[in-house]
Amino acid sequence: MRIGIDAMGSDFSPHNEIEGILLANESFSKDKYHDIELILYGDIDEINNVARKNHLEISHIQCVHSPQKVEMDDDPTEVLKTKRESSLFLGLQDLKEGKIDAFLSAGNTGAMLTCSSVLLGRIEGVSRPTIATLIPSVGSRPVVLLDVGATVDHKARFLYEFAIMGNIYAKFALNIEEPKVALLNIGEEPIKGTDELREAYKMLEKSKVNFIGNIEGNEIMMGKADVVVCDGYVGNVILKFAEGFVSFFKSKLKAYGESKITNKLKLSMALPTFKNILKELDYEEYGGVPVLGVKGISIVGHGKSTPMAIKNMITKAKELVDNKLANKIEESIILNTINS
Amino acid sequence: MRIGIDAMGSDFSPHNEIEGILLANESFSKDKYHDIELILYGDIDEINNVARKNHLEISHIQCVHSPQKVEMDDDPTEVLKTKRESSLFLGLQDLKEGKIDAFLSAGNTGAMLTCSSVLLGRIEGVSRPTIATLIPSVGSRPVVLLDVGATVDHKARFLYEFAIMGNIYAKFALNIEEPKVALLNIGEEPIKGTDELREAYKMLEKSKVNFIGNIEGNEIMMGKADVVVCDGYVGNVILKFAEGFVSFFKSKLKAYGESKITNKLKLSMALPTFKNILKELDYEEYGGVPVLGVKGISIVGHGKSTPMAIKNMITKAKELVDNKLANKIEESIILNTINS
Repeated sequence: MRIGIDAMGSDFSPHNEIEGILLANESFSKDKYHDIELILYGDIDEINNVARKNHLEISHIQCVHSPQKVEMDDDPTEVLKTKRESSLFLGLQDLKEGKIDAFLSAGNTGAMLTCSSVLLGRIEGVSRPTIATLIPSVGSRPVVLLDVGATVDHKARFLYEFAIMGNIYAKFALNIEEPKVALLNIGEEPIKGTDELREAYKMLEKSKVNFIGNIEGNEIMMGKADVVVCDGYVGNVILKFAEGFVSFFKSKLKAYGESKITNKLKLSMALPTFKNILKELDYEEYGGVPVLGVKGISIVGHGKSTPMAIKNMITKAKELVDNKLANKIEESIILNTINS
Repeated sequence: MRIGIDAMGSDFSPHNEIEGILLANESFSKDKYHDIELILYGDIDEINNVARKNHLEISHIQCVHSPQKVEMDDDPTEVLKTKRESSLFLGLQDLKEGKIDAFLSAGNTGAMLTCSSVLLGRIEGVSRPTIATLIPSVGSRPVVLLDVGATVDHKARFLYEFAIMGNIYAKFALNIEEPKVALLNIGEEPIKGTDELREAYKMLEKSKVNFIGNIEGNEIMMGKADVVVCDGYVGNVILKFAEGFVSFFKSKLKAYGESKITNKLKLSMALPTFKNILKELDYEEYGGVPVLGVKGISIVGHGKSTPMAIKNMITKAKELVDNKLANKIEESIILNTINS
C-alpha cells in the first residue's frame, strides 16, 4: 500500500507533515505493517531544509517534487486551472493513475473537494461529492454532520445521498455498527421544514439506512443521532458558529480574568478544568475526514494539524483503503437507488 | 398607557408574572410614571390562590379572566382555532381592539407569532412577520439574529424585509445608532451562497440600511454585525445549537468532576467562574423580543423568565410603545420599497 501526503498543506507545513510521517512509520513498523510506503508531495528543497534544521532523518522517505503550492485562500476552481504543478494536484493525479492508494492533505478543504471530484471522478449515482465534519457529543463518540462541503442548493436528492454516504462513513470510518441517521430540521414531525426536507424524509423512510427522523439543532451535540444531514449552507454555518462559540468563551474567560485581581486568581484555578473540556472539541484523534462520493481515498485534515494529527490521518487512510470505503459507498448508493 | 401581561405564559406561571408586575409597578412609581396601568390575563382563581400563598398583594391589579391556557407545545394554528378563550388569545384581541397598548407573554413563541400575525394583522409591505433572537457577542452588546420565526422558504424578498425590520429593532429597542446589517453566508463574496442570498445581497446594497455584506457563522458572536439575517430554518438551527452547546459544556463539566476526586475539587473551584460566563448567555435584562412586522406591540419572553425578566419585558413594552416601533417599521418598509 502506498499513501501520499501533501507536505505543503498545513499551517505548519512541511514541518508537521514530516514529523507526522515519521511518527506513522514508527507506529506501522511497531504494528508490523511493513508493506506500507509513505510518500511526501512538496517542494523538495524546502522539505530537506526543514528536515535538516529540525534534525529529522528523512533520507528513506520518497519525495515527489512540486514547484507550486496551494494556499488556504486559493479559489478551488482556480487551483484546477493554474496550480497543476502543486503538491495537492500532483498527489491527486497520482491517486487517479493508481500510483498511490490514498492521498491526504491538511490544506485547502475546498480545493481538495473540487480537485478530488474532478480528478478522481464521482462515484456513479452520486450527484455531489461531500465532506463531513465531526461534532463532539455528550456521548462517547462524535457525531457526523454533513454536508459541510459547498452544496448550497438544497435538493431532496442531494440530502438523501448525503445520508447514505454519511451512514457508510460512520460505519466504516468510525466503526459504528448501525448508525442512527437523522435530518436536521426545525421540528420532529415529518411535515416540518422546507419542501426538500419533507421529500428527503419520505425518501429516507424507504431507504435501507437506520433513519430515525428529524432532529433539532439542540439535539446535535446530545448524540441523539450518529449522522446528521443538512445542506451545505446550514452545515457550514453550524461548523463555523461552533468555532465562534469557543472563541467567544475564551474571550469572555479572558475578560473575566482581567476585570478584577480576585477574578484573575479564580480564573487561574479554573483554567485547567476548562482546557480539559475544550480538548474534547479537538479532533486530532479522528484523523481528518474523507471526501465522500469520489473514486478514491482522499482525506482532508485541519489546517492546524499537529504531527500527531497527521500521523492519525495516515493511519485513517490505511484503514479506509483496507475497508474499501469508496466501493462501500458505491454499493450502498446502488442498493438504495433500487429501493428508493 | 395600558400594558397587558399573559399570567399563564412562563414555566413558573402565574407566580413569576405576578411578582414581575409588582416589580414593574414599583419601578414605574419610583420613576414617576403614574399613567401606566398593568393588566393580568389569566385564570383568576389560580392567580388569586398563588398570590395569597406567596403573600403577594394584588388587589389593586386589574385581571381579565381566561378559562383556557396555551401550552408550550400547542400547535399555533390549533390555538387560533380552539383556544380563543386563552389568556394569550384574549390579550392579543384586546390589543387589536385598542383596549391595551401592548401585550406580552413568556409562553408559546410560535403561538404568539401566529396569533399576533392573524389578530393584529401584518404591516403593509411585510410578507412574513418575524421574531428575532439576541445572541451574546464578545462586544458590549448582543447581536440581533433573524428570522428565528418559522419562515423556512428562503425568498430574497423575505430576507430583505427581515433586514429592514431587524435594523429598526436594533435601532429603537437596543438603541444602536446606525446598526451594521449583514447576511449570514458561507463566504464574504457577493456571489457566495444560494440564488436567494445573492439576490438579497443586491437588494440590500441598494437599500437605506447600513449593509456591510456577508458574514460567516464564526463571525456572529464576534459582533462583526449588529443585525444578522438568515432564513428561519438556519436561524432556528443556530439558536437551538447554541442551547445544545451550553448543555454539552455543562454535561462535560459534570462528567469531568465525577471522573476523579481531585477533578471534583478542581471543578468546585472552577464553577463560579464558569457560571459567571454563562450568565452572559442570559437575556433577562433585554426583556424579550417583539413580534416584528405586525400592527401592534406584542412581546415574547423566554419560558424560564424570572420575575425580573418579566419586569424587564414590561419596561421594554413601555419603551416600544413610546418609540412607536410598529410605525417605525412601517415607515422603513415604505422608504425601502421606493428605493429598492
